Amino acid sequence: MTILNETPLPVAGVRLSSTAANIRNQGRDDLALVELAPGSRTVGVFTQNKFCAAPVVLAKRNIATRAPKFLIFNSGNANAGTGEQGLADAQAINSEVARLTGCDDHEVLPFSTGVIGEYLPCSKILSKLPGLVSSLHRDGWAAAANAIMTTDTRVKHFSTQISRNGTTYVVSGMTKGAGMIHPNMATMLAFIATDADIDESDLQVLLRDFAGASFNRITIDGDTSTNDACVLSATCATSDGSPLSPGHPHWDPVVDGIGRVFDALAKSIVRDGEGATKFVEITVDGASEQDNISVATTVAQSPLVKTALFASDPNWGRILAAVGRAPVPALRIEEISIWLGDYQIVDKGEHVVSYDESVAAQIMEKSDIELKIRIGTEGNTVQVWTCDFSYDYVRINAEYRT
Amino acid sequence: MTILNETPLPVAGVRLSSTAANIRNQGRDDLALVELAPGSRTVGVFTQNKFCAAPVVLAKRNIATRAPKFLIFNSGNANAGTGEQGLADAQAINSEVARLTGCDDHEVLPFSTGVIGEYLPCSKILSKLPGLVSSLHRDGWAAAANAIMTTDTRVKHFSTQISRNGTTYVVSGMTKGAGMIHPNMATMLAFIATDADIDESDLQVLLRDFAGASFNRITIDGDTSTNDACVLSATCATSDGSPLSPGHPHWDPVVDGIGRVFDALAKSIVRDGEGATKFVEITVDGASEQDNISVATTVAQSPLVKTALFASDPNWGRILAAVGRAPVPALRIEEISIWLGDYQIVDKGEHVVSYDESVAAQIMEKSDIELKIRIGTEGNTVQVWTCDFSYDYVRINAEYRT
Repeated sequence: MTILNETPLPVAGVRLSSTAANIRNQGRDDLALVELAPGSRTVGVFTQNKFCAAPVVLAKRNIATRAPKFLIFNSGNANAGTGEQGLADAQAINSEVARLTGCDDHEVLPFSTGVIGEYLPCSKILSKLPGLVSSLHRDGWAAAANAIMTTDTRVKHFSTQISRNGTTYVVSGMTKGAGMIHPNMATMLAFIATDADIDESDLQVLLRDFAGASFNRITIDGDTSTNDACVLSATCATSDGSPLSPGHPHWDPVVDGIGRVFDALAKSIVRDGEGATKFVEITVDGASEQDNISVATTVAQSPLVKTALFASDPNWGRILAAVGRAPVPALRIEEISIWLGDYQIVDKGEHVVSYDESVAAQIMEKSDIELKIRIGTEGNTVQVWTCDFSYDYVRINAEYRT
Repeated sequence: MTILNETPLPVAGVRLSSTAANIRNQGRDDLALVELAPGSRTVGVFTQNKFCAAPVVLAKRNIATRAPKFLIFNSGNANAGTGEQGLADAQAINSEVARLTGCDDHEVLPFSTGVIGEYLPCSKILSKLPGLVSSLHRDGWAAAANAIMTTDTRVKHFSTQISRNGTTYVVSGMTKGAGMIHPNMATMLAFIATDADIDESDLQVLLRDFAGASFNRITIDGDTSTNDACVLSATCATSDGSPLSPGHPHWDPVVDGIGRVFDALAKSIVRDGEGATKFVEITVDGASEQDNISVATTVAQSPLVKTALFASDPNWGRILAAVGRAPVPALRIEEISIWLGDYQIVDKGEHVVSYDESVAAQIMEKSDIELKIRIGTEGNTVQVWTCDFSYDYVRINAEYRT
């Protein structure tokens, strides 16, 4: 059993630094640099929003060209909806990182998050780059995770260590994102690194599968950001000379560790969802994976379900209505069962005869809620995570500019 | 020019009555009966939610069988998620209306709205039916419109009169619906009647087209109800012996009048959207009708756009991000322009050079906001109506059980 560590562990081959460039707010860190040692392999997935921000355009182009050596993150400004100027700004920052570190500018990936539609205060950022480069250190994870936050109220990083036959591997990750979160491939900023030696093709599969089962299964408000990116690096610092692969005795535990870090990071975003007072796990089974996901995300996005969750109201009628509007043609109300935790509420589309609302209401009072929905008799099961919809969601988004 | 009347005008051939059956709340009307004179033609469209409420199942069956003579509405209880018992309850009420009025029970259409998942208090309703039948009168529109309200804060009815060559036609309509509103065919309860003589096939086309351009173009929270229904009747009381048809000189003005009543009713639902403080008209042009609608409804449903509207914040970055996640593959950011009223904010995917946020903020302060989005160079234009997302939306839906 892998133990997750909330205190970030250094990963051999990764150094980080962060600083305050006063991009939007004064006096808090909003700029972070990550260095990946030579030989590191890095893969990424990016937002499916058709209006990618400038840094996403550049990051996608560069990662397809060269193995990344540096990742440069800023919060406070998304550099999205900024046209040619935005691309030029992102490129200028990339070029300066490359010049200062002696790498090629295609070896730098930029990431921005924050307000859309304002030009990046480029000179503020450029002036901080020399300091960032000179202060890179292996223990910079927590500070970097702090620097990439926007409306996040809590810093989000997890680590795990995997020891086998005298070899110890580390996996660490950080993420940010509290709003504009919806499963559509890489729904936030996230960076996960391990010192294990993993081939790029295996790394791609791991990223696709783990992002698919974690970051792509969370929804806060149904809005997909212009800036989402998730990057996974293997520095290969801990290696017996050849990459781990599915036959290797260390493969399964290392992969398990990576998966747990993805899972913990994704859930931490939901727990810190804008205005969230509840963490809700929605499990759907009984149909194909795609149909189960459709039902789960429709329920997870329903404003009426989410306000009922906020009110701790076991309003299963709203859940039933949301299931019924999911884009799944074969749904039949006679096949729907709903459980709150282990307590069954709905059987064959009606509340169970012995249903006691006071029992359901007690379960709803908890801050962690499990909702199980069965929509048929086939075997597949999926899980989606979401939060409730509170006054504070409205307040945060009426006051803050993303 | 057709003048719309907020005071409902009687329609020859339609009588209505209403009463308090104490279904959910005490002392307010929650039951309404509508009588359609013999010879009336009636068509309906119903929710696309796969879990239709019992009354919808029955109404769809009956309207396909016989020309309806009576419509029985209740608020306070949706009779949805109630299985066989729910169907039996709706049938019992229908049968009693039929028995009291001497019609066939297939000539009665039931409509329910309110809380999902509770059995209908059938005996309360049955005991009020004799009084409803004996109190039918032509001036019952306003009271009936009041009786079908749930979280509505305002009664919703409109009428118009069309006079041509000494003949006067009347169109009157009533509707309800403030939450669980989303365009997916007939998104509320609505009943519209005219005394004009119109063939059933023409009436079907009018209902499809007008519901498509009004009730199916509004969204409050993206949730599609289990109970939505929209019914259009032509009593044929005002007739020169043959139905109006597209060649008849009265056809165009009568059709225009019917369309205006649909339009006004649909917009009145948005103006009374749960917690709404703004009425927002979103116009999208430049692509196919379907693509324009996709973009318009994606923007209209975005919680981030809706909270910005609540805050009177001209946050065009959120609008741009919502456009970019619409399910329209061909979108290109270089082709996007956005106007707030007549003030252009975005040109070719970036804010216009002369953009002055204080001007935009002033426009956003208004209670009626026009948002125009151009996504290409083709000619089609669509409009969608929505409202903002406020603290009160959360309060209403955290407190009320639908």
